[in-house]
Amino acid sequence: MKKLIKSKTDYVQDMLAGLNVSQSDIEIIEDTVVVRKHKKSSGVALVSGGGSGHEPAHAGYVAEGMLDAAVCGEIFTSPTPDKILSAIKAVATDAGVLLIVKNYAGDVMNFEMAQEMAEMEGISVKMVIVKDDIAVDNEEQRRGVAGTVFVHKYAGYLADQGVSLEDIVAQVEHLLTQMKSIGMALQPPYVPTTEQFGFDLHDDQMEIGIGIHGERGIKRTEAKPIDEIVKQLVERLREEVTVTEWIVMVNGMGGTPLSELHIVAKYLNAYLDEQSIAVKNCYVGDYMTSLNMEGFSLTVIPYDAKVDEALKAPTMSAYFN
Amino acid sequence: MKKLIKSKTDYVQDMLAGLNVSQSDIEIIEDTVVVRKHKKSSGVALVSGGGSGHEPAHAGYVAEGMLDAAVCGEIFTSPTPDKILSAIKAVATDAGVLLIVKNYAGDVMNFEMAQEMAEMEGISVKMVIVKDDIAVDNEEQRRGVAGTVFVHKYAGYLADQGVSLEDIVAQVEHLLTQMKSIGMALQPPYVPTTEQFGFDLHDDQMEIGIGIHGERGIKRTEAKPIDEIVKQLVERLREEVTVTEWIVMVNGMGGTPLSELHIVAKYLNAYLDEQSIAVKNCYVGDYMTSLNMEGFSLTVIPYDAKVDEALKAPTMSAYFN
Repeated sequence: MKKLIKSKTDYVQDMLAGLNVSQSDIEIIEDTVVVRKHKKSSGVALVSGGGSGHEPAHAGYVAEGMLDAAVCGEIFTSPTPDKILSAIKAVATDAGVLLIVKNYAGDVMNFEMAQEMAEMEGISVKMVIVKDDIAVDNEEQRRGVAGTVFVHKYAGYLADQGVSLEDIVAQVEHLLTQMKSIGMALQPPYVPTTEQFGFDLHDDQMEIGIGIHGERGIKRTEAKPIDEIVKQLVERLREEVTVTEWIVMVNGMGGTPLSELHIVAKYLNAYLDEQSIAVKNCYVGDYMTSLNMEGFSLTVIPYDAKVDEALKAPTMSAYFN
Repeated sequence: MKKLIKSKTDYVQDMLAGLNVSQSDIEIIEDTVVVRKHKKSSGVALVSGGGSGHEPAHAGYVAEGMLDAAVCGEIFTSPTPDKILSAIKAVATDAGVLLIVKNYAGDVMNFEMAQEMAEMEGISVKMVIVKDDIAVDNEEQRRGVAGTVFVHKYAGYLADQGVSLEDIVAQVEHLLTQMKSIGMALQPPYVPTTEQFGFDLHDDQMEIGIGIHGERGIKRTEAKPIDEIVKQLVERLREEVTVTEWIVMVNGMGGTPLSELHIVAKYLNAYLDEQSIAVKNCYVGDYMTSLNMEGFSLTVIPYDAKVDEALKAPTMSAYFN
């Protein structure tokens, strides 16, 4: 499949070098670690990361008001502990460092190893693990998906307010118990490094409950009109979100045009309205993608004035609006 | 082809209703005319529009610092004069109205008709026509493409500064003589209303000089690595842009992941650097798309401190960063 690349081995480094052309307030260290050019002198520093292929997550959120560093692995591959340690050391302040990690075995293991190494060097480090994907029934095995971007924004706001590391962890952990996501796909992602599609899907089928690494969903059905898809996803979300005021993200998976994401938002809002659920704040766009996968995910947070204020606070990131 | 839609006839109205879910500072009048909820009481009002399928253009730029209204036709179809007139009347101030129109016969004709009708009602209206696509040799036949978004931003800034309608026209016309764009595609757009692809393209081919309505390009060649594609496009741009400091937009056509657009930016910057051309300001993202077409366009403005300040000025649009 044709791609706008020079070589598959240089994909991640080229992408980050290119990000640095438009975002001049970052710098790239050790090839694949993105840090703010003007580092914080006080306040908790935030480090996230994981495999690449989810752009703008995570490198696009390294900016005032959000992350201090993002550690980028190869496509769909965890970054190594030494790179994570480099990120931690590059941005650490006396207030400590918060690691925001999606719940994948490799990411959790490598971020934990880096945490231990940093602590041995006297840096105070805490970790939160995002498990928002309710496609997976077992809560401990739930994957971290688009809700991770809400965590970047919320924690970034708290850090800028001077909240302590312990208190940020407590407040983020509270959010994490309430934040739920689920996604679907019409087409799998094409992975340029392996030159393969994530899965096969017929022209008249869709996948419900996909992950962001080319994993198949939990259920394959015939493709349906968007109002029926939205209803199906919302009904699953409502099993876990029982309040009637929602903050929502309609997240594109990378290959879906914005026009269709807005159509999703229309039918989402219409169905929620029928159910007497109010959309208090809604984000629509590509936040946590899976290369060129066609589809979307919905992320829900119960409305909370403080979280809402945090999400609406300014950030210099070009990719959170 | 599967799409995230309810019906092809409701595509545009559904999309705009969905835009209004996340962008609550707009309202939709007459089904497909997007206007700011809080209208200007003074200063020139800006109206743009055209066929749909180019999201976030143009409805996504109706916001403080950019447009006052966008008139949305059906997919790849000009809006009608009566809707354009409604937009003009909805946002007109004593300072007058500027119409920002891409150079397509239907758009120009319908906006001109609406202008005449508005003038008969005593509204002062001027029009600028964007013809930035240098894929077409004949300057009068050049299409308006992604550079139109720079015009929205520049004119929006001037209007907010209280510049008169005549002076905005003069300054925008000056920009228009200097702004040049060219695009390419790896895959054509799929048009949901006609249920057809814009053109056919083999797996090992690419199109240079595509338009944004599913038109074929001016040249079809074998697909090449991105550095060679960038070099080819830049060499064409340099025939018309001779200065050595550039403001650049790398615009995604809708179906290309952000990671690849950043890879484009890397090789663009590297090649310009070899040619001793400095990228002073660079925008990367989906600004003026063609549904799910895979590919990108480059738009260049010679660096100018005032234009640069205008582009960097704040806007409430979620889609210009």
